[in-house]
Formats: sequence, structure tokens, C-alpha cells
Amino acid sequence: MVGTLYGLGIGPGDPDLITLKALKILQAAPVIAYPAPEDKDSLARAIIAPHLPGGQKEIVIETPMVPGRFPANDVYDKYSEEIAAELNVGHDVAVLCEGDPFFFGSFMYIYARLSERFETVVVPGVSSAMASACQIGMPITSRYDVLTVLPAPIPAEDILRRLQACDAAIIMKVGRHFAKVRDVLGTLDLIDKAHYIEHATMDNQVMMPLSEATFEKAPYFSMIIVHKRGEAWK
Amino acid sequence: MVGTLYGLGIGPGDPDLITLKALKILQAAPVIAYPAPEDKDSLARAIIAPHLPGGQKEIVIETPMVPGRFPANDVYDKYSEEIAAELNVGHDVAVLCEGDPFFFGSFMYIYARLSERFETVVVPGVSSAMASACQIGMPITSRYDVLTVLPAPIPAEDILRRLQACDAAIIMKVGRHFAKVRDVLGTLDLIDKAHYIEHATMDNQVMMPLSEATFEKAPYFSMIIVHKRGEAWK
Repeated sequence: MVGTLYGLGIGPGDPDLITLKALKILQAAPVIAYPAPEDKDSLARAIIAPHLPGGQKEIVIETPMVPGRFPANDVYDKYSEEIAAELNVGHDVAVLCEGDPFFFGSFMYIYARLSERFETVVVPGVSSAMASACQIGMPITSRYDVLTVLPAPIPAEDILRRLQACDAAIIMKVGRHFAKVRDVLGTLDLIDKAHYIEHATMDNQVMMPLSEATFEKAPYFSMIIVHKRGEAWK
Repeated sequence: MVGTLYGLGIGPGDPDLITLKALKILQAAPVIAYPAPEDKDSLARAIIAPHLPGGQKEIVIETPMVPGRFPANDVYDKYSEEIAAELNVGHDVAVLCEGDPFFFGSFMYIYARLSERFETVVVPGVSSAMASACQIGMPITSRYDVLTVLPAPIPAEDILRRLQACDAAIIMKVGRHFAKVRDVLGTLDLIDKAHYIEHATMDNQVMMPLSEATFEKAPYFSMIIVHKRGEAWK
């Protein structure tokens, strides 16, 4: 008997934004695994901490965070083998993913290495993008709106071009690219149609109209939502 | 004492894909409201039926479904007043929304009419877009991918233009626009990089590579996911 690999979307930050399905799997799994930056606490583990029954083995996927670079393949090779060893002795392993596992989630690197060797179930989660729109209090898309999701690290000219071709935009992973993104939105005269939010649904959530965001840098878990049509959904 | 208006994302279809937060509010609310097509059962109510404690008042938001047309404003005017009457006598009202309330959800019409008059809490949910990617087993976006979400009813030339400018696309509400969308994907030589899915996570879910979808029409709750980079996330 080999175990099942689970990729669990655990939602954007509020522990109650986990799904019932992910909660049941989380609590039943003998082994859980989650990413953590080197020498820092894991956000994913902090989010689900109130739900842990105790007594589970925990695998910490230590991921070096170097700005502008993705973790090297050998990080995921190593932890995939550690997870595979548990699966091979019949233990189910639940890998935790902030937000949704297949929407910019690092679970996909584990999935790429193990899903052909082991039975794998991926449980979708509430993404920070959807949660941010709810917190800000403005629908992202209505009727026939076209939405574009952009990672802030791409070049300014690409951001500009994509923003011209949509009705609404979610700009993810703003972090140290904040000033660049704000400049692009200024060029397009969209500052007044944008909102900034960081740590959506967490205790340290901060949000404001972009026009009031006068800083130059933002934390990694921050985003900007642009509603080009303003309040046309009303 | 007036009641609180809740907009609850209830997820894509599997009853266990509701969040803990939405579940608690759903079970505590004295009044629930949900959309239903005229003379048909409500999908939203069917999704949460296993969780209902019984004894709640139910408001059915009967919505005429005319292909190519959105419900007239007076439909939402009427039901908003019915909900307001409950709020005014101190009853909380939980309005159910398939998927996420602010991602193409009809809750926004109630929200537009009542959120300035009553305390309102919007609870995000797992969208069918995220759930579909998990069911198909291919990450939507990785690293610096740009994602575009398109409603299928927009003109073919707009779909074509937007597909040219992204790495991944989710084409929503495919329904009777299926043949048009498939033709556009054929023009762009993207048929082999697309998957079709209907009723994601429900008992009647159907999915297949788009190349195997030889029909001409699809149900309303269907979508096509395009991964232009193929399996580049591996």
C-alpha cells in the first residue's frame, strides 16, 4: 500500500477560509509538508495551526528566497524524495499551499516530480486575488469583463500593454516592484481606479486606495487591483 | 438592531469546497437567499443542501434566463427590497453565490443596492476557474505567467486578440459559444493546448482534451482552459 499525495489549497490567510475538504484531509494525514523561507517561519503552517490535531510528522520544505530568482531544481528534487519516502511506506502526505495550489503555487514543482508516480489529489483553494477583491469591497469582474492577472516582476512595458487590453487587472507579487507598477498606472491615468492591499484577510492586513499609497516598497504578499470601469457594476 | 447582509462564496459544486467561514455563517443565518432560474431548481441551494440545519427562511431570487441578455434591473430591485425587509427587522441574510461572489457573481447586483444601507460582509469562495485547473491536473499559472480570463460571449475577434497576449487563458461561460471558441483556438493552433470541462467538481463533471470535444454546444457551466506554454511548469 502506497500513500496518496495531496496538494491542499489553504486559502489566503484567515484560518476559516480553508475549505471543509482541505480541512478533513489536513486533519487525517499522518504527514504534512509546507514551504518556509530559510530561517523563517512558514506562513502556510501559521495559517492552518489552529486546525492541527497534533501528532503529525511535519516536513519543512526550506526554500531559499533570493529576489528575482526562483529556487533551484535541486531543492524540489530533495524534498520530493523525502515526501516519496513517506508515500512509499503507506503514509498519505498533505502538502500545504497558500491560496490555490495551481495559481502561482510552489506545489506545482512537487506535483511535477511525483504525480506520475503516486496517486495525487489537488484540492483548490480561495486565492488571495479573489479574497482581496472581497476585502476591498469591489467586484473584480461582472458581465462580459475581461480580467488579466499579471505578476509585477515582468517588465514595465509588458505591464502597460496588458493593462491596455483588459477591463480589470490583478497585479500579484507587487513587493519591491511597487514603484514601477504605480508609475505604469500613472502613465495610463489609472491611479484613481486602483486599490492596494497586503496580507489580505490576515490580522496584519493593510489596504487603501492606490492614490494614498505613498511608499516605495511593499511586502511580497501584496497586490494591486485595477477596475478600469470604476463602479460600472453598480 | 438591523441585520447583517452576507455574500457567501459557496465554491464550484462539491459541497465540501465551501469554506469554514461561509459554512458557519450559512448555518447561523435565520434567512438565506439564492438565485434560481424561473421554474427550475437552484444550483446554489443544491450545493449547500447537505449543510442546512433546517428551519431557515428561504428567499428564492427568481432570475429569468434569456440567452444573450442580463436580467433586468427590476428583478434585483424587487429582491433587494425583500432582503432589506428582513435586515430591517434584525435578521441576518446570507446570499449564496456559486464560486466566488465578486468573480462574475450575480450577488454584486444585490451588493450594489444594499451595501451602503446595511452592514455587509463578503466571504470569498473557491472559483470554478481554480477548481477546473485542479480537476484537469495542470497548473494554470506558474512563475511570471500572465493569465487572462475571458467570457465566451464576447466577439470572436476579441477572444483571438486577448488569447494572443497571454500565457494562459480561462474562457468562462462557454455554453452556446462553444463552436465559436473552438474555431478561434483552431485559428491560433491552440486546440492541442486546451482542455474542456463542465460542471467542475460536481457529480456530473465531464472533462476532456479539447481535441476530443466534437460537440457543437455545451452547458452554461462549462469552460475551456488554455495553457499556451503546454507543460512548461514541469
